[in-house]
Amino acid sequence: MLNTKMQALGDAPSPIRALFAYGAQRKKEIGSDKVFDFSIGNPSVAAPESIGREIVKLGQADPVAVHAYTQSAGDPGVLQTIAESFNRRFGTSYTNKNFYLVAGASGAISCTLRALLEPEDEVIAITPYFTEYRIWTEAHGGTLVEVPARSDNFEMDLDALEAAITAHTKVVIINSPNNPVGVVYSRQNEEGLADLLRRKSVEYGSPIFLLSDEPYRELVYGGREVPWVPDLYDDTIVCYSWSKCLSLPGERMGFVLVPDAVTQSRAVYSAVCGAGRSLGYICAPSLFQKVIAKCVDEQTDITAYERNRKLLCEILDEFGYEYIEPQGAFYLWVKALEPDAEAFSEQAKKHELLLVPSNGFGVEGWVRLGYCVSEDTIRNSCDAFGALKADYGK
Amino acid sequence: MLNTKMQALGDAPSPIRALFAYGAQRKKEIGSDKVFDFSIGNPSVAAPESIGREIVKLGQADPVAVHAYTQSAGDPGVLQTIAESFNRRFGTSYTNKNFYLVAGASGAISCTLRALLEPEDEVIAITPYFTEYRIWTEAHGGTLVEVPARSDNFEMDLDALEAAITAHTKVVIINSPNNPVGVVYSRQNEEGLADLLRRKSVEYGSPIFLLSDEPYRELVYGGREVPWVPDLYDDTIVCYSWSKCLSLPGERMGFVLVPDAVTQSRAVYSAVCGAGRSLGYICAPSLFQKVIAKCVDEQTDITAYERNRKLLCEILDEFGYEYIEPQGAFYLWVKALEPDAEAFSEQAKKHELLLVPSNGFGVEGWVRLGYCVSEDTIRNSCDAFGALKADYGK
Repeated sequence: MLNTKMQALGDAPSPIRALFAYGAQRKKEIGSDKVFDFSIGNPSVAAPESIGREIVKLGQADPVAVHAYTQSAGDPGVLQTIAESFNRRFGTSYTNKNFYLVAGASGAISCTLRALLEPEDEVIAITPYFTEYRIWTEAHGGTLVEVPARSDNFEMDLDALEAAITAHTKVVIINSPNNPVGVVYSRQNEEGLADLLRRKSVEYGSPIFLLSDEPYRELVYGGREVPWVPDLYDDTIVCYSWSKCLSLPGERMGFVLVPDAVTQSRAVYSAVCGAGRSLGYICAPSLFQKVIAKCVDEQTDITAYERNRKLLCEILDEFGYEYIEPQGAFYLWVKALEPDAEAFSEQAKKHELLLVPSNGFGVEGWVRLGYCVSEDTIRNSCDAFGALKADYGK
Repeated sequence: MLNTKMQALGDAPSPIRALFAYGAQRKKEIGSDKVFDFSIGNPSVAAPESIGREIVKLGQADPVAVHAYTQSAGDPGVLQTIAESFNRRFGTSYTNKNFYLVAGASGAISCTLRALLEPEDEVIAITPYFTEYRIWTEAHGGTLVEVPARSDNFEMDLDALEAAITAHTKVVIINSPNNPVGVVYSRQNEEGLADLLRRKSVEYGSPIFLLSDEPYRELVYGGREVPWVPDLYDDTIVCYSWSKCLSLPGERMGFVLVPDAVTQSRAVYSAVCGAGRSLGYICAPSLFQKVIAKCVDEQTDITAYERNRKLLCEILDEFGYEYIEPQGAFYLWVKALEPDAEAFSEQAKKHELLLVPSNGFGVEGWVRLGYCVSEDTIRNSCDAFGALKADYGK
């Protein structure tokens, strides 16, 4: 009498969201300073002050103008402002006609996959990967194919990718800076992927689209380069979000960018608009469209994440945890102390440590720590990490 | 190489949205006072002042708290506040566990249909109906069955509905106050539907869900009653929006309400959450969740719509147009002066009158006028209505 697939999705929320909900409850029970919640990517750094100032101005402006529907893709003036900001940053020449504003990178990826996928199409994701890629791929009729990252440095394994690409491959999703590992793909690695996709597109006579999921583009450490992917490969569609770089995760602001260089660019753009329509998206939130237009050149202060990263690494080092040194985003990928990551995450809960098990990211044996938390949370978690290590007698 | 259905949806945007985009362009060309844009349901009445005040306060509050992700269904405290407001209004006993906040009524309907529909399921809509019901039904694998409203008063035709219900009928969508006609179904008419659905649910051994699409609940004139539909029929799911009643259309705030009386209520609620997840919805915009919690008992001032309605009816009367006297919402359903509504809408454009042709609502021969515009727009449109009438030599 209902769609049992949807019920199953609702009954088993994403492991990240489930742990986040557990954390919220637990904080109520024992106090938020007693729970070391590394579950969710909720930025702990405040949005730039200009965001608050613009919100105040819009709260005092003509409400009919502020809150009206915009065109589905977004207000054309707002889109043009965004286009020009990206043009300044990347030397591109986009216009408002290349951008489709939508509710965050999640909405952007969902619309893009729905726009592109036809029955029997395959989408490749690189494990470990963001939990929901599989959900959205399957929601829009595709099949997700997992290709493991290189085990040494978690960059893309181009040989494994080549072996996985078939005549059915429609999309390859990449996410750099990467959630959950924190790796940033090198230019060389991405150029290798671009060469491979060009070769395979010719071989199969149809473009393979590269979906670049970029909510963490601005969150990099030590001056690491994050190449502008459309420069490397023409059939790139960028799914972007201001959730992390402007610390606005709950406001659901992001975009799909379809550059003119994409094969049948206007048709693809139309299909993205059609996909948004078919899913019930009407327009991105009006007030925040105007906020973004004013603040698109702003950046959140990432020095707090840098400090957190250093501090957390020191604690992990102290107790001898094994982890991947993060280059970007705000996640640490830590080896679980037993093969079963879910059991390890449960054990960590006993010390009020909320660590997301790697199973939801498509691999066994690791946990993800979001260090977008207060410095105090990290400092105070030290004993818990020690006690957790002691549980395993090492 | 892409999903051609999505491309077609994008290439042919909803007739309302297409006319709205045309109007925006035309206003730029000749000045907004020269274009009589009755195309879209963008409220012309300002949001209550308290909305602006809350926005200002939130712009000055801790941005980390204001803009954080909430739980997917919405912040539990916000949901509880909403539940209590509806309980006061309708004598119900809902809690936060009955509500799922989502991006407007559109998002709510999309999630509800996706939650319920299985292959071969049918959804019944009463023509004329809101353009997008068909899109969302088909997007989620169902078949839309159109049942004409009664031709005399545009209430539901219960005999025609009975004839249309089959073993495949999963959902009946109703929308009262109605877009596009402006009719409000009487209690007797809705009780008749409830009786019919109970009888048919027993006959086919499975519940038929009543989806009550309620963005216009508060917009009624002359003290007309809008019954609380879950009181009349247990398997009612309410899809609600604050777009019109608080004049916040662009902010995308609405909910799905699954009362406990619904068959397998918890499973249905889970399926709604799962549907939202599968479509890429993450949470309703955080700042506006907090605004709604503060302003949920507020109401927009609908006296302007009452004045507009009266004024527009006077103009239509003056030139002898035939129309349905509206009881609610902010639409007038006017008989086109030729059988082809699209041709009539094109003819009206020559006088800068933007009237939505009825074809997109599933019927021939009418146009929809949204009178959620400034009083001046209506006053100044008088000559254009006269000239349009004169074009048809009557």
